[in-house]
Amino acid sequence: MNRTLISELSALEDGPVAVAGWVETVRDQKKVQFLVLRDESGAVQLVRPRPEGDDAISLAISGVSLGSFVRVEGQLKHDERVKLGGIEVKVDAFDVVSASLPEQPIAADSSIDKRLDHRFLDLRNPANALIFKVQTTFEHALRVWWVEHGFIEIHTPKLMNSPSESRAELFQVPYFETTAYLSQSPQHFKQMAQAAGFGRIFEIADAFRADPSFTARHATEFTSIDAEMSWIDSHEDVMAMHEAILVAGFQAVVDKHGEEIERLFGITVEVPALPFPRIPLAEALKIVAERGYVVPRADGDLDPEGERRISAYVKEEFGHDFVFVTDYATGIRPFYHMRDADDPTLTKSYDLVYRGTEISTGAQREHRIDVLLDQVADKGLDPEELSSYLEFFRYGVPPHGGFGMGLARVLMLMLERSSIRETTYLFRGPNRLLP
Amino acid sequence: MNRTLISELSALEDGPVAVAGWVETVRDQKKVQFLVLRDESGAVQLVRPRPEGDDAISLAISGVSLGSFVRVEGQLKHDERVKLGGIEVKVDAFDVVSASLPEQPIAADSSIDKRLDHRFLDLRNPANALIFKVQTTFEHALRVWWVEHGFIEIHTPKLMNSPSESRAELFQVPYFETTAYLSQSPQHFKQMAQAAGFGRIFEIADAFRADPSFTARHATEFTSIDAEMSWIDSHEDVMAMHEAILVAGFQAVVDKHGEEIERLFGITVEVPALPFPRIPLAEALKIVAERGYVVPRADGDLDPEGERRISAYVKEEFGHDFVFVTDYATGIRPFYHMRDADDPTLTKSYDLVYRGTEISTGAQREHRIDVLLDQVADKGLDPEELSSYLEFFRYGVPPHGGFGMGLARVLMLMLERSSIRETTYLFRGPNRLLP
Repeated sequence: MNRTLISELSALEDGPVAVAGWVETVRDQKKVQFLVLRDESGAVQLVRPRPEGDDAISLAISGVSLGSFVRVEGQLKHDERVKLGGIEVKVDAFDVVSASLPEQPIAADSSIDKRLDHRFLDLRNPANALIFKVQTTFEHALRVWWVEHGFIEIHTPKLMNSPSESRAELFQVPYFETTAYLSQSPQHFKQMAQAAGFGRIFEIADAFRADPSFTARHATEFTSIDAEMSWIDSHEDVMAMHEAILVAGFQAVVDKHGEEIERLFGITVEVPALPFPRIPLAEALKIVAERGYVVPRADGDLDPEGERRISAYVKEEFGHDFVFVTDYATGIRPFYHMRDADDPTLTKSYDLVYRGTEISTGAQREHRIDVLLDQVADKGLDPEELSSYLEFFRYGVPPHGGFGMGLARVLMLMLERSSIRETTYLFRGPNRLLP
Repeated sequence: MNRTLISELSALEDGPVAVAGWVETVRDQKKVQFLVLRDESGAVQLVRPRPEGDDAISLAISGVSLGSFVRVEGQLKHDERVKLGGIEVKVDAFDVVSASLPEQPIAADSSIDKRLDHRFLDLRNPANALIFKVQTTFEHALRVWWVEHGFIEIHTPKLMNSPSESRAELFQVPYFETTAYLSQSPQHFKQMAQAAGFGRIFEIADAFRADPSFTARHATEFTSIDAEMSWIDSHEDVMAMHEAILVAGFQAVVDKHGEEIERLFGITVEVPALPFPRIPLAEALKIVAERGYVVPRADGDLDPEGERRISAYVKEEFGHDFVFVTDYATGIRPFYHMRDADDPTLTKSYDLVYRGTEISTGAQREHRIDVLLDQVADKGLDPEELSSYLEFFRYGVPPHGGFGMGLARVLMLMLERSSIRETTYLFRGPNRLLP
């Protein structure tokens, strides 16, 4: 008999079914045995009246360890009294396909580090699995939007001859007779696509930072969502695309998983309204200061507390969870951000802050080689080291811009999880390379 | 005026338009100036009657170097006599947005190495750009199929504590106080998803091999298409999914790009028929030998010439470009392939050969920890080194299987290109880390 997904049982009529999954609970009573069987789609109650003096099936049920994968044939019965979905399966055959060790090494309330040590079990928790169903739906909606708008998907190399962002936090890889660097972002190569005339591109891929921090927002390896587009007038065009894909992603998540998120996390995901609020950085700093917090940084950037405060302000004033903080000062932006023609102390750039945490940086890029060289010099960088990148700009490049966004951060904030460790399939940090 | 993509011009009525792209050719005649302007969607002829004694526009057109990005406003006119699409734009304004150096460093007939040195220009060739539009459509169709069939998208880490496949061809990365390895395939972690009860998963991501070869089929970094599914009966279930996604991918490519592929490459892409032929390896070797080629390998595997010959046979006999070569001998398969219950010298595995080249390996995996440990020992591997992987199997794992497939190889063979260097956005080989 073909296996039926548990989520599809309730639509079937009473009758014979086969289900397969892992044993979540057993209530081994004298007169009747109950189990909860879970698969990737849901959970169902199994029931077996116990025969006098036991038989092979009742003994198998008594002996099965929690977490074991089993295949069960039985009779589906709709019964409103059954709390779990109003259905149960009366067991006719019970096959332990793969037994678990008797002791589960983690519980739902184990420490995050212990849970990550046994991530393959931690992910059996339906709430944790839901995070990756949401991830699937969210990413897919972004890609559908891009594909429908003529974006080309690229896969940029992660092995590079030179740093893509900065000399700091760079993993080095012995590479035959030379040394390669692990890409910190696809910045160089998504800009290359603009020189190549690709027009609009996207990539969802790995990025690496040898970042020694242990915060809830940092990892040494993360999934970066990147897009870049030509013929923009300013970073405003990038923000318009950026908020459009986010709305598409959130809408898809709400449509497909809204109820389950409410049930498992007790929260309601809402589709953000368009347009997202935009506040220039200088104004954001003023607002935050007026509300009693002077950012203790000399460089004029927001700090995490400043980001939380500007988000709180935006939530109060506009009822919005997102805010584009725009027009960052030149001193705190990389050399490739375009500067404002009217005020070269400002860049045509933005950070996207979601519920108090920065999830993305975007900008119009400087495409004029002479200006770019000036900005390289201004930042004290070595043009020789950037020569392969700079070459892209010598044969014509249209005006362009884009953004990079951390997938795990978006999911963490959307689903109100405490750390990207929870929203990354397998977290990598300075002291975590396992499993 | 808003920019119109060149591909959308022919649907417009005569009248004012703005277009933007790069200058592909200039015919600078005495009475009239002609240019071909190309953007990501196509090419259009620009025309400008030359005024007596020239003016700013005619001088700009005379002076523009090929490859420069320009923005043009003008009057769209449908005219059947114009070879290029039956339309032209009469120039009213001509703005050189980003000038190219006057000398193009490559031509269409430059060597592949020289073209790769200037890949950002090489990709302006519409045939080369088409490869990545095809890639976009192909991948998207695969993902749509998977998402519609309940597969979860995962992003596995590329930084690992132990080798994912073999100790050979492994990049090492100094990682804080220890050493990490770059993932050769997501094998461990897509199997982990099965232990986690995810059921069905896919990933399209980077994989790394420190492979010193210089063939047309090898790279040190490549995009791997991976899927894995639970509750299979044998590798046959994996093959059924595998051929279904390929048909979906090819169908989408034919629908969206069939005509352009025919025009630019002079070939017709056909959607393969279902089911793909399946031939056990032992039979394939016999067929090849009967047709005059004895594979000069002691290990009983096919070599590249053998793969070409079995493909030629399948093409002749069944008119099919694909063949699943199945049931590889245990000695030439990794420890994690499940062995045949009736004949443990064979594995429940396959290679997918497309037009004479292997593009994929798939298998049912061994999920029984005791058998798996025997197979680890049988292969002379150190279970200590695999301990993190083996741990996945101690708490129950459903029967499962999957495949990994090289994206660039599929595209190379589909579009009849000579090397994966042509079908990789930026190729990485033992002596290529640039651009």
